[in-house]
Parts: sequence; C-alpha cells; structure tokens
Amino acid sequence: MQKILLHLDSSVRPSSFDRIVAIDAGADQVLTYGSVTPEAVRDLVHGAIFTRAPKDLRNTAIFIGGTDVATAEQLLAAVADTFFGPFRVSVMLDANGANTTAVAAVARIESLGDVRGRRAVVIAGSGPVGSRVAGLLAERGANVFVTSRRSADGAVAAKIQRRFNVSVQELVLGSGADAADAIRDAEIIVNAGPAGVCLVPLDAWTSQTSLQILVDLNAVPPVGIEGVEAVDKGVTRHGVMTFGALGVGSLKMKLHKSCIARMFERNDLVFDVESIATVARELNSTSQ
Amino acid sequence: MQKILLHLDSSVRPSSFDRIVAIDAGADQVLTYGSVTPEAVRDLVHGAIFTRAPKDLRNTAIFIGGTDVATAEQLLAAVADTFFGPFRVSVMLDANGANTTAVAAVARIESLGDVRGRRAVVIAGSGPVGSRVAGLLAERGANVFVTSRRSADGAVAAKIQRRFNVSVQELVLGSGADAADAIRDAEIIVNAGPAGVCLVPLDAWTSQTSLQILVDLNAVPPVGIEGVEAVDKGVTRHGVMTFGALGVGSLKMKLHKSCIARMFERNDLVFDVESIATVARELNSTSQ
Amino acid sequence: MQKILLHLDSSVRPSSFDRIVAIDAGADQVLTYGSVTPEAVRDLVHGAIFTRAPKDLRNTAIFIGGTDVATAEQLLAAVADTFFGPFRVSVMLDANGANTTAVAAVARIESLGDVRGRRAVVIAGSGPVGSRVAGLLAERGANVFVTSRRSADGAVAAKIQRRFNVSVQELVLGSGADAADAIRDAEIIVNAGPAGVCLVPLDAWTSQTSLQILVDLNAVPPVGIEGVEAVDKGVTRHGVMTFGALGVGSLKMKLHKSCIARMFERNDLVFDVESIATVARELNSTSQ
Repeated sequence: MQKILLHLDSSVRPSSFDRIVAIDAGADQVLTYGSVTPEAVRDLVHGAIFTRAPKDLRNTAIFIGGTDVATAEQLLAAVADTFFGPFRVSVMLDANGANTTAVAAVARIESLGDVRGRRAVVIAGSGPVGSRVAGLLAERGANVFVTSRRSADGAVAAKIQRRFNVSVQELVLGSGADAADAIRDAEIIVNAGPAGVCLVPLDAWTSQTSLQILVDLNAVPPVGIEGVEAVDKGVTRHGVMTFGALGVGSLKMKLHKSCIARMFERNDLVFDVESIATVARELNSTSQ
Repeated sequence: MQKILLHLDSSVRPSSFDRIVAIDAGADQVLTYGSVTPEAVRDLVHGAIFTRAPKDLRNTAIFIGGTDVATAEQLLAAVADTFFGPFRVSVMLDANGANTTAVAAVARIESLGDVRGRRAVVIAGSGPVGSRVAGLLAERGANVFVTSRRSADGAVAAKIQRRFNVSVQELVLGSGADAADAIRDAEIIVNAGPAGVCLVPLDAWTSQTSLQILVDLNAVPPVGIEGVEAVDKGVTRHGVMTFGALGVGSLKMKLHKSCIARMFERNDLVFDVESIATVARELNSTSQ
Repeated sequence: MQKILLHLDSSVRPSSFDRIVAIDAGADQVLTYGSVTPEAVRDLVHGAIFTRAPKDLRNTAIFIGGTDVATAEQLLAAVADTFFGPFRVSVMLDANGANTTAVAAVARIESLGDVRGRRAVVIAGSGPVGSRVAGLLAERGANVFVTSRRSADGAVAAKIQRRFNVSVQELVLGSGADAADAIRDAEIIVNAGPAGVCLVPLDAWTSQTSLQILVDLNAVPPVGIEGVEAVDKGVTRHGVMTFGALGVGSLKMKLHKSCIARMFERNDLVFDVESIATVARELNSTSQ
C-alpha cells in the first residue's frame, strides 16, 4: 500500500522544499494543495480518512506547511477537529520550517550541556521560531528572556506562557545600540530575527564574559549576530561556541525527514513543536 | 509503462478522496487539475492522447470528478468530443460519487431479488444520485416514482426519460407530513435527499405493510429515513431490510476502484452510470 | 534516490503533455506549478537546490514549459540567477515545444545533406519556432531569409542575430499572393506560421525548380504549405522532399525525452535550443 502524504499549504504556491523532503523521507505520493484555508480542511481530511480502512490509515499522513505559521496552526486545529474515533491519520506542522528549526537550534544548544538555570536571551522571541525556541528552553529549565523590537509589555511572554506553560521575561532590543544591555550576563543567545538585519554587533557580545553559546538562525547575510557565519556548526569564536543557520540546518532537515517517516508507522501522531523535540532527543541519544 | 490517470475536477480544490482511491486502484501517477471548465478540456486531453503511441494508450485514462455533477457531464462530453480514431483513452465519470453511489444502491436492492413490477419510491429523485437510482430501477423493470420537494410537473420524469429511455412517475414529498401518502404501497424506498434532512418519519414507513427494502443514502445525521442507521447493511428493522449510506459505501468504493483498474486494460471504455452498473453485475455474479 | 522534476509553467493550467512526457522519460515524480511568474522562481528553485546534498542534485531537474515562450525565457533567466556554486540543477526550456520542434525540423533537413550555402526561406520567422529554425539554419551556414506578414524592417533579423550571432535577411509574405516572390530560388522552405493558415499555394512552390525540401510545422488543416500532408516524413511530392508536423513530431518527442533523461545524469546542464540541437546531432550519429 502506497504511503500518501496530504500536503496542505496556505500559500498560493505550495513549497517545493516540503514536497521534495517528503519524497526523500519515504512518501510514495505527495498530494499537494495550495491556498488552503481552515474552511477547506474538512473535505480534504475526509478524503484522507474515508478512503482506506482504519487499519491501513498509518499509510496516509498529513503535512501542514506554508509561509504563514499562524494560519498553519488554524489548519492543524481544523484537521484535528475533523478526526473522530479510529478515523484519523498522523499529522505534522512545520510551516515555514518553524518547528524543526526551533527544535534543531535547541537540540544543538543542549548537545553542549544542560540548560537548567542558565540565562538565555532569545532575540525576536515574538516570531514563530523565536517563541518556540524560548518555550523549549524555558521548559528545559533555562532562565529565558525574549526580546522584541518595540516594547516589553508582556504580551509576548504571555503568549509563550499560554502555549508552553512556562514563564519567560521580556526585554526591548530595537537596534544594535540596545544589544549590550539586552544580552548582559547572557550565557546563551539565539537570534531568530528577520533576514538581513544585524541586531547584535561584534563588540556587544565579545565583551560578555558570561557568554558560552551563540546561535544565529538568519541565513541571509548580513547575519543577525555579527561575526557568526551561516556555516558555523560548533565553531569557537572569541571563546564562544557558535552556530549559524546552515550549521543548524542539517539537524533540522534530519528531524523533518525523521518525523515524516515516523508518521507512516502509526495513524495517531501529532508532530508539533514538543513532539518534534522528543524526536530530536531520541535522535541525539541514538547517535551517542 | 506507468499507468497515468488524468484527473479533471471542476472544483477549485480537487477531491483528495478521488486522488487516493485512484492510487489505491493502481494508478501510478495521478495528474490532478482543479477548476476545469469545458473549454480547458481539449488541451488537457490532447496531452493525454498525443504523448503515447495508440497501442500504449491503455496505460493512460481520464477520471472526471468534482462536486458539480452537471459540469462534470459537460466535461465528459468535451472529452469524448476531443477523441478521434485510435486517439482516445478510457474515461470515467463519477462526480460527487453520484454514479458509483447510485449503482451501489441499486445493486444492494437487486441482491435481494428481482425488482421487476415492484413499486419503488425514490425520494429526491431530481438530484444527480436520485435520478440515476430512478433510471436504473426503471430500466430493470421497477414501477418507479420519484419525489420532488415542490411540484410534480413532470420535468424530473422527463429528464430521467431522456437520459435512460424509461418511464417514471412523479410525486410531491415536501416534508415528513407528506411521507405517508408518498410512500403508500411502496415495496422499495431509496432516499437520495439532502444531508441532515429527515423526510420519512418512523411512523410513515413502519405502517406500510407492503414495504420490503429501505435505502438511505444520507450519511450525515439525522438520516433521511428515521430509524435507519448509516451503518445498516441488510439489517431487518420492523420487518424491512435496511441499508444506510455506509452500508452501501463499501460496494460503492469497490466499484470505484474496479472501474479505475479496468480503464487501464483498454483505451476505449466510457464508465458512466450504465456501464458502471454492468461492472456491478459482474462483481455480483463473481462473488456468488 | 527518486528523480524529481520541478515543472514550471506560466500557464494557468500546466501542460498535461509535458507532465506525461516527463514521466515517460524517467522522472519518478513531477512537481508541477502553474501560473509561475519570474518573481515566484526563487523560492521554488531554493526548494530544489537546498533539499538534497550537492552530490545528489543530479537527481533533481527543472523543466520550463507553458504556452508563452517569452515568459518561459524570463523564467529560465530567473532560474539561472538563483543557482550559485554547486547549488544548481539541470534545467530545460521547451515552452510550447518551440525548442524541440525547431531542432527536430532542422535535424530532418540536415539528415538530407549539408545546408551550407543553400537558400532557405523560413515562413513566419518572427515567432518562437520560426526564429529558432532560422537561427539554427544560419548557424549551419545556410543563406536564411525569414518572412513576416507585414514589414521587413529588420527587427526580426536583428532579434535572431542577437540571439544566435548569425545574419539573416527579411522578406514580406502577407498572403498566398506574395508566396511566389518570397520563395523564389529557395532550396529549402520551412513554414512555422499560425495554425490553419495556408501561406504557400501549390502553384507557388511547384513552379520553383530550385526547391528540394519543404517542411510544414502546422499540424492543423489546412496546412500552411498546400499539398504537404501533416504525416509526410520524407515523401517526394512534385520532385520535392516534404515533411509535415507529424513527420517531424516523432523526432521532436524523442529529443524531448532524451533531454529529460540526460538532465538526470548531471546537475549542470542547460537545455536551450543550441544544446538541444547538439543532442539531436548525437542521436543522428548514433542512429547511423
């Protein structure tokens, strides 16, 4: 029986990246839909759950992508809402790669040691990747600060708390001039800011003696943390272990493929950020 | 040589159901097009008939789906119009599952005995499924009455007569209050009415001593014939043999797959309601 | 590793012809995108070049189709612009079949002997197929004249010169009445004019004693050169060797498939008209 992945993407032109990764992860057929709205989900999911007997439904799965993470979350809710009883298939959310990127970044950090009690600053923690990194680090016991560009009114922290049931604090980091203050005493810094914007000048971080790990998830030059290279994968720079977007990318890709492959083992998995993090820990322990 | 199914669907989002069934029926590649209009058919069919040598064209086929059965019929006409000489492929029409649902319902009824001379009432006989059920039953010699919600002006009967070359009569069945009159002396009742509308209350049919078979094709509760369950598959209720939508559904699915598979055996089949009914009779005789 | 073809088509409904040929040429998966604009290319190509390791990228390729050849050329430029270093895949342009049709026509002509110094008239040399035929023939040393329907102001010749770095001359051929003048002393005539328009009456060409080869690429009757049949494949008519659209079509198809198959042998091929012509010469020499 062929492994069929129903690929739901809210963008007009569904991601070719996600289609190719799905094929390489073992899907025999990828049924791609673009411009998918929450209203359209029901019929598409019915097609997935009513065509094969429940015992065969592990051969069907759903991947939710698209560049808009908030819409993708609505699609996931609509998918879950359509399932009932044994009429369900495994589903994975990785819109814009946000889940696998965040999990891979945190896994890289954890591969260097326990994060409990360590001060971690997540730059641009309001975005989909940043808020996931912050939530995961806080869940592991780090003392997490998220920065926003304009205000620290608590809205971002509240959102992360609701989603991850953890407590994080907020800071303002509007431009490079604020960086030294924002990252003071940080042991870990992760930048999840917009492409091509440098938010942490070299001076700001090289002067922090507390600093141990720097992760910059921005792949487009100039990188967001000056002095980090996109290809850095555990390089020591100024005494700090650095990771760039491509250095995190190989693990991100491995995670993406592993989750797609696992979906075809049973029909009741939901791969969202926490469950993908569990897969990352399993991959880590296997590779040691 | 790969078996390629050209899947033409007039809906904006082509059916995932039809794509998965096609794969499970043996198509190696399903080329799906949404928002297909009659004008678009010619180029798409040319791509199907001019890419492979006539002797290989049994490996290419066309499936016409979509939620709008009337448009699908126009697409089928446009497809047939494009064929010429040996430049043709097999084609199947099953928009909204209307053909396979109607045929499966009638096959279930016939599996219980000959319908010749028996009074059959098809509720909502004006819709695509109901008119097909009525036409098929009349073709087999049943004495068929179709009900409409508003008038019995003969338009529905005339349409069925044109399509199936049979004679049927009309009745009004606007609400449950009309039911007892409409189904008086009926031996067979099939409900093809809209989802979630109960048109035949329990009292109305349990008081008909003539009644032998009840089929309710409505899968969404409340069912259209009170007291029938969607999963009924030849259950005796109040002395009547009942079938629900899911009870008919397994045969419907078997028919759908069988027709897809048969299309890849030759390049000149046209699976519309009558020819699908022939397949149903063959499946029936094989399984006995 | 599966062979994946990214199929970019500027038309709303991407070509079913190109999808089926791609499958028959060995692509395991064809990822088709319609309504593709130059702006959309970057993300789609990133998906193709960033999902697999550079050493595996020969298993991914890009086909650019669509009915609008000018837009397809912009898409090819955008694709090439996105590649960098080893992050590239092979790519083929054959919008509207213009490249393979033009190359196949010229290959048929060359199979009958060297074209150097021979007078060749390309009717409708301003269109995508005609300008390619003219450019290829001139490149091989023929003395090429292209006809336009309205003026011979040099614009078409200049365009062909820019593209192929060759010199061609212009003539006006507005209707059949101009034909005798336009084709005077021609040894080779190729018609690449619009479907269903006869531009060269029988009298006009049968009276030319110089004439040796006639190619009519118009498949829809009436053909563009009176007396040539679409199926002609080296038929002698009135002492002239004639080829019709279908007579050229089998080689066109062979070329199309051969180029698709070759793309999956390495990751740095660009199949545009000249490189497809090279493939045609290799196929010719192999078949002798």
